[in-house]
Amino acid sequence: MTTREDARGLDDADPLAGFRERFTGDGPGGAWDDGPGRRIYLDGNSLGRLPRATPAAVARVVEEEWGRGLVGSWAHWVGQATRVGDVLAAGVLGARPGEVLVADSTSVNLYKLLQAGVGARPGRDVLVCCADDFPTDRYVVAGVAEQHGMTVREVAADVDTGLTLDDITAVLDDRVAVVVLSLVAYRSGAMVDLAAVTELARASGALVLWDLSHAVGSVEVDLSAADLAVGCTYKHLNGGPGAPAFLYVRRELQGSLRQPIQGWFGQRDQFAMGPAYEPTDGVERFAVGTPPVLATAAVEVGARISAEAGMPAIAAKGRALTDLLVTLVDERLPQLRLASPRESDRRGAHVSVEHPQAWQLTQALVDRGVVPDFRTPDRIRFGPAPLYTRFVDVWDAVDRLADVLASDAHLPYSATRSRVT
Amino acid sequence: MTTREDARGLDDADPLAGFRERFTGDGPGGAWDDGPGRRIYLDGNSLGRLPRATPAAVARVVEEEWGRGLVGSWAHWVGQATRVGDVLAAGVLGARPGEVLVADSTSVNLYKLLQAGVGARPGRDVLVCCADDFPTDRYVVAGVAEQHGMTVREVAADVDTGLTLDDITAVLDDRVAVVVLSLVAYRSGAMVDLAAVTELARASGALVLWDLSHAVGSVEVDLSAADLAVGCTYKHLNGGPGAPAFLYVRRELQGSLRQPIQGWFGQRDQFAMGPAYEPTDGVERFAVGTPPVLATAAVEVGARISAEAGMPAIAAKGRALTDLLVTLVDERLPQLRLASPRESDRRGAHVSVEHPQAWQLTQALVDRGVVPDFRTPDRIRFGPAPLYTRFVDVWDAVDRLADVLASDAHLPYSATRSRVT
Repeated sequence: MTTREDARGLDDADPLAGFRERFTGDGPGGAWDDGPGRRIYLDGNSLGRLPRATPAAVARVVEEEWGRGLVGSWAHWVGQATRVGDVLAAGVLGARPGEVLVADSTSVNLYKLLQAGVGARPGRDVLVCCADDFPTDRYVVAGVAEQHGMTVREVAADVDTGLTLDDITAVLDDRVAVVVLSLVAYRSGAMVDLAAVTELARASGALVLWDLSHAVGSVEVDLSAADLAVGCTYKHLNGGPGAPAFLYVRRELQGSLRQPIQGWFGQRDQFAMGPAYEPTDGVERFAVGTPPVLATAAVEVGARISAEAGMPAIAAKGRALTDLLVTLVDERLPQLRLASPRESDRRGAHVSVEHPQAWQLTQALVDRGVVPDFRTPDRIRFGPAPLYTRFVDVWDAVDRLADVLASDAHLPYSATRSRVT
Repeated sequence: MTTREDARGLDDADPLAGFRERFTGDGPGGAWDDGPGRRIYLDGNSLGRLPRATPAAVARVVEEEWGRGLVGSWAHWVGQATRVGDVLAAGVLGARPGEVLVADSTSVNLYKLLQAGVGARPGRDVLVCCADDFPTDRYVVAGVAEQHGMTVREVAADVDTGLTLDDITAVLDDRVAVVVLSLVAYRSGAMVDLAAVTELARASGALVLWDLSHAVGSVEVDLSAADLAVGCTYKHLNGGPGAPAFLYVRRELQGSLRQPIQGWFGQRDQFAMGPAYEPTDGVERFAVGTPPVLATAAVEVGARISAEAGMPAIAAKGRALTDLLVTLVDERLPQLRLASPRESDRRGAHVSVEHPQAWQLTQALVDRGVVPDFRTPDRIRFGPAPLYTRFVDVWDAVDRLADVLASDAHLPYSATRSRVT
């Protein structure tokens, strides 16, 4: 049996242990409460924690750049979307400068790049997505397909272990324009091979549009092998609730792609305010309206922390944390079925378990200070964040869950589901 | 001749004078510097000033709601977009509860509602916009027209005095699906009759999609007479750089309109994460991705100030400030030609003047502490903000401009235009 001391030993050897202090804890003044009754937050892949540097960074933009600089600060702000994009490109995405833009929401970016991809594949009338993908991905794909009279073809992937290259091969043919896929599945955490899938799609003439929402900041991503991607900054990048998302377009494709929302921030000579829309050459052509300056300042802080820690170390700790979780579930919680890949190199930094009373268990855990995420219909999802979750936190969370299960403490909870996460 | 004492008298009688203290000034600690060398900011219709309450409101959301509340704060955040929308609806837009949503950028909202409007007028193949409208409006219209194989018909309006009902009548027929118009023109400030234009369009079976960016918070808007609208919150609403925009959809139309970006925040039972997109009944169906929580907190502060001051008083002061400006230009600056409506009830809270060296004059003014806005090709735009600009500020700004013109102090400035505002 794996002991709490074993977990402590892993923490002692953790090269990222010092990064915990970069984040706000739950104790007085934002210190970390390490007591036995502390909150154990395992939902950093829904909303990442607040970096300690963020309040001052946001306050500086609000009070100095906006409050004192006023319109003069646009000289600085106008490059913010690509400056922070370049931080993400170099630090966490394996992309080149000028390939990543921070803008809009993940859903809006997905729409823009999906439309751009469809436009680049005239005559093809099929979009591919995964039936188990995150709702917004499926809904956006359905909407775009409807607009163009296209068909949506679903990849039949295993909901726990994710899709295989054979699953992808089975849906590809010369009718497919764009494949939309999450690199890390939002429920199971199952990861697919970005380079191999992109190559398969390219061979059949299709583009892959990757949703990196659960991958960015948790696994090593090498976008040099990809054509199109979008992703979220408020999960493992710790950019804040509803923070602006990012989009990636391979440099060589940028000039040939057009996105449909022709806003003035994509215009070549923006302040000439000319009669016709002529998109700029670079990744800014995928920008639309005036960029969200305050919120992007928070994104920059989070992005720089992940870049500093380095994705190899972050990904390695993510695998180790979830390995510990899987081991402890095996050893102590036979009532739960693992609903994620067992091999750590086939998943992101979260794992799900299945139980008929998953909802009630989630509520009982929350009341005992453990914050996982419930995912419909019967999954509890644990997302230990490599930058601030300790191995002993995982051990204690499983211990509290074992207590709940052993005492049937979850049964009094209502099965009514209204929680929003 | 109108004297500085006359301007002081207007300030003494100003019922909104006390609202100036709600905003951050340029002196130490954000106090107002009222000295002769002070900055005179007449660009509040490009980027409004920082309300004094905003830093604390943003800090509370960052440090308490995000930092301590984490995902639990979604219980509060999930209603934020409509809660702040309702503040705008009741306080500044003349709309009903549940008709206004804060979301995305103005450009993205324009795209969503324009596509929704086109979808609601099948068989019609013309979009109308104004050749002198703000670039993003024209570009978005052009993009949507291209997607649907529609024609763009331009209203031939006078660039200084704006469009008339005859101008509108001339372009309306049974081919027009949607008319996109700014209620207050971004250069001239010319205002059109919202109710009358909407009625004309309805009579021909078309929808009007209003862009209220320069109108909201500066003139009285009565959306009870309108069908569709979008607008900006970082100008006269003082919501911060790149703040989320708003959209309005008349309650009776909401159920019949579909927007094209089918994101998960528009879904009826969002956390069921069901297989198909089924938009909710209310204005939230025009939402897309996860809402920008931090930035919307700043919008709320600004919106509440305008609502508290009341749009009748704000609009009256806007007319009085620009009346003073027009009078002073007439009296003291014969070199300038007024490029805005002369009648105060036909314009918003800004006026433009024309001069061949408008760009150089703008630079010379900025160096003398007056911040107007240059608008291509030869306009200087003055936007005194009713909530914090005094009549004496307008007088002093004109006085400094008179000095520049009298001494040819603007001539040494380069004609190269690179300023970003």
